[in-house]
Amino acid sequence: MTDRLTVDVSLDQGRAYSILIGRGLLDEAGVRIASLGARAAVIVSDSNVAALYADRLRTSLEAAGLRSGLVTVAPGEASKSYATYAEVCDGLLAHKVERGDIVVALGGGVVGDLAGFAAATLRRGVRFVQAPTSLLAQVDSSVGGKTGINSPLGKNLIGAFHQPRLVLADTATLDTLSEREMRAGYAEVAKYGLIGDAAFFDWCEAHWAGIFSGGPERDEAVAICCRSKAGVVVRDEREDGERALLNLGHTFGHALERLTGYDSDRLVHGEGVAIGLALAFRFSARLGLCPGQDAGRVANHLALAGLPTSLAAVPGGCGDADALLDAMAQDKKVRDGALTFILARGIGQSFIAPGIDAAEVRAFLTDELLAG
Amino acid sequence: MTDRLTVDVSLDQGRAYSILIGRGLLDEAGVRIASLGARAAVIVSDSNVAALYADRLRTSLEAAGLRSGLVTVAPGEASKSYATYAEVCDGLLAHKVERGDIVVALGGGVVGDLAGFAAATLRRGVRFVQAPTSLLAQVDSSVGGKTGINSPLGKNLIGAFHQPRLVLADTATLDTLSEREMRAGYAEVAKYGLIGDAAFFDWCEAHWAGIFSGGPERDEAVAICCRSKAGVVVRDEREDGERALLNLGHTFGHALERLTGYDSDRLVHGEGVAIGLALAFRFSARLGLCPGQDAGRVANHLALAGLPTSLAAVPGGCGDADALLDAMAQDKKVRDGALTFILARGIGQSFIAPGIDAAEVRAFLTDELLAG
Ligand SMILES: NC(=O)c1ccc[n+]([C@@H]2O[C@H](COP(=O)([O-])OP(=O)(O)OC[C@H]3O[C@@H](n4cnc5c(N)ncnc54)[C@H](O)[C@@H]3O)[C@@H](O)[C@H]2O)c1
Ligand SMILES: NC(=O)c1ccc[n+]([C@@H]2O[C@H](COP(=O)([O-])OP(=O)(O)OC[C@H]3O[C@@H](n4cnc5c(N)ncnc54)[C@H](O)[C@@H]3O)[C@@H](O)[C@H]2O)c1
Ligand SMILES: [Zn+2]
Ligand SMILES: [Zn+2]
Repeated sequence: MTDRLTVDVSLDQGRAYSILIGRGLLDEAGVRIASLGARAAVIVSDSNVAALYADRLRTSLEAAGLRSGLVTVAPGEASKSYATYAEVCDGLLAHKVERGDIVVALGGGVVGDLAGFAAATLRRGVRFVQAPTSLLAQVDSSVGGKTGINSPLGKNLIGAFHQPRLVLADTATLDTLSEREMRAGYAEVAKYGLIGDAAFFDWCEAHWAGIFSGGPERDEAVAICCRSKAGVVVRDEREDGERALLNLGHTFGHALERLTGYDSDRLVHGEGVAIGLALAFRFSARLGLCPGQDAGRVANHLALAGLPTSLAAVPGGCGDADALLDAMAQDKKVRDGALTFILARGIGQSFIAPGIDAAEVRAFLTDELLAG
Repeated sequence: MTDRLTVDVSLDQGRAYSILIGRGLLDEAGVRIASLGARAAVIVSDSNVAALYADRLRTSLEAAGLRSGLVTVAPGEASKSYATYAEVCDGLLAHKVERGDIVVALGGGVVGDLAGFAAATLRRGVRFVQAPTSLLAQVDSSVGGKTGINSPLGKNLIGAFHQPRLVLADTATLDTLSEREMRAGYAEVAKYGLIGDAAFFDWCEAHWAGIFSGGPERDEAVAICCRSKAGVVVRDEREDGERALLNLGHTFGHALERLTGYDSDRLVHGEGVAIGLALAFRFSARLGLCPGQDAGRVANHLALAGLPTSLAAVPGGCGDADALLDAMAQDKKVRDGALTFILARGIGQSFIAPGIDAAEVRAFLTDELLAG
């Protein structure tokens, strides 16, 4: 096996694990998963990704002496539902997954969250491995152990903390990802720079095209993002503090996803995040917290990468300021009716801002909607 | 507040909690739950129990300054389903349960398992309090943090380990429990003696009537059972070993529940356990592990308490030996196709017996079915 870019997630209590990053890792998956000491490894994937990569992964698993199986769900956010969760659990049980076996999540963040939650709760917890195939999943959702599904009352409201035993990010799988999903994942890449690493945001401005085209910049960017996220997760696994910074752009973004009915034809998660990042910086600037030129630089760069950066860019619209505020108030970052936002003092200088006045937010959103 | 019989569950990492036992505890629930530092406490109950006790509990909660709410499900094992789980989660969300709030499970083991699993997974985990109202729940299911629901593929296959923050066993609530459910719970009481405490089984033979009638023996028995279970749970929370002993009688019992379609008109959990206990001892005797007279004493005592002790006692029958074996093989205690049983060398001397030959079990069951 080739040497791979590796990021360690140094959690305690035997829960430390590695993130491996590189082209062609899927073909090494069998050996690497077998070394965890399992007998069977059952894959959960969506039909898009399964058609492209499930056979290769199964071949690798079986060659390493693992019994394999496959449970497939429909692609898209709608699969993060109670009903599909039940189907995945029953599918894994039908494949006779026992307590020592391993669930492999092969796909984007939807599959990772869903399969991870099924693994967390199947027989009260079986091990799982993330094999992320979207850029968003490789740089964000596959790392850190947040798993879950959506409730009709809100996104990611049901779930568990359940860390994977291994993350295998085969960056060659991104070659088949649609341009749109690539861009959406790129919003999360840029997010890491904006949260706490201004130098990485500079680097992104210079090298983003290489990430899209699959040059060495891609692996490098995935590794930098994973290292950044792993650090946060180790310091604050349960999001009692710092981890909330990873939600930069997400309070706005989740509200937009809710208001567009989680319909990925209209808006995918990363697009919501891109708009949310631009809004978070403009809102910070409006509150006098952040230089206006930083807000401009953020929006410009995201737009250059082909991402939406304003409410007007939401296809079919997103309702008025009150609808947006209502959708935000349902979000889980609400405490005692006051809104908690992640704001920024500049690029790479985000912070948790609790107790933001709803009237302040409403006025901002009204102006954003008027600006078009 | 009165002094109460108390059993401590001394888990680490801030997860230690108390089990309080006594008549009238529901009226103290508000103060005791408020002292955990919550703002809101939302009750999950079934319609039988809610009609009897929800108002009293809510009054107590509100008097202690807690915002309260109530989510009600249909009574019976069928509520431990994916669908009812989703309803409970959404019901709790509709009551605006946030991360610092508390879910209170008011009811028998069904409500405890279901509400506990909802609490384990709502917003990736909120705290919960058990207020068990069936004998079975007071002596067994409310303690130890196993929560979960059933899959069409088997009982308790989906769930989480999630310890309650407090258990309030108001033994006066058992006054309204049906005779049948009282007997069913009593099977679990006797189980503790049979597992590892021969003196307690002696005591049960002498005092069982006082447990049923609500004398001081009832509180005493609940405390003894909880102390026994708490010890096992602290030593082996995740059932890597010793905790499996608590499944004495359950491999047979679960198979019978499955074969009667989880239809509580035909068989309730404790009745399955009673039959299972009698079978486990007779099977142990047949294998030459246990004196035949101990097996006889077990069956006699359970029968005296009004419990079924043979396969013939299953209303509507339970299929042939192969059907039973199939139902057992689906149970989660199966490893590599070999059956693991909890057997006994005598009353109070149970042990884990892995690798029991299926043919041996089939022959035993065939004879049991012939014996009628
Ligand atoms: N758990 C976390 O910490 C966390 C963090 C961020 C986001 N998320 C979640 O992640 C989800 C979004 O993930 P996503 O953007 O990966 O969406 P996704 O899983 O829906 O994938 C996007 C689309 O790309 C397709 N696809 C994936 N990999 C492909 C490949 N290699 N080739 C071709 N097509 C491919 C999928 O089939 C899908 O249609 C959201 O539900 C979000 O809540 C979770
Ligand atoms: N989590 C664990 O460790 C564990 C252990 C043992 C059993 N269990 C589970 O517990 C469940 C069985 O629990 P159960 O026997 O309590 O069943 P249950 O919860 O269905 O209660 C039995 C019946 O009694 C009624 N009832 C309860 N309290 C009452 C009261 N005070 N007055 C009047 N009626 C009352 C209920 O409405 C129900 O109809 C099973 O699902 C089993 O798997 C879990
Ligand atoms: Zn995101
Ligand atoms: Zn039981």
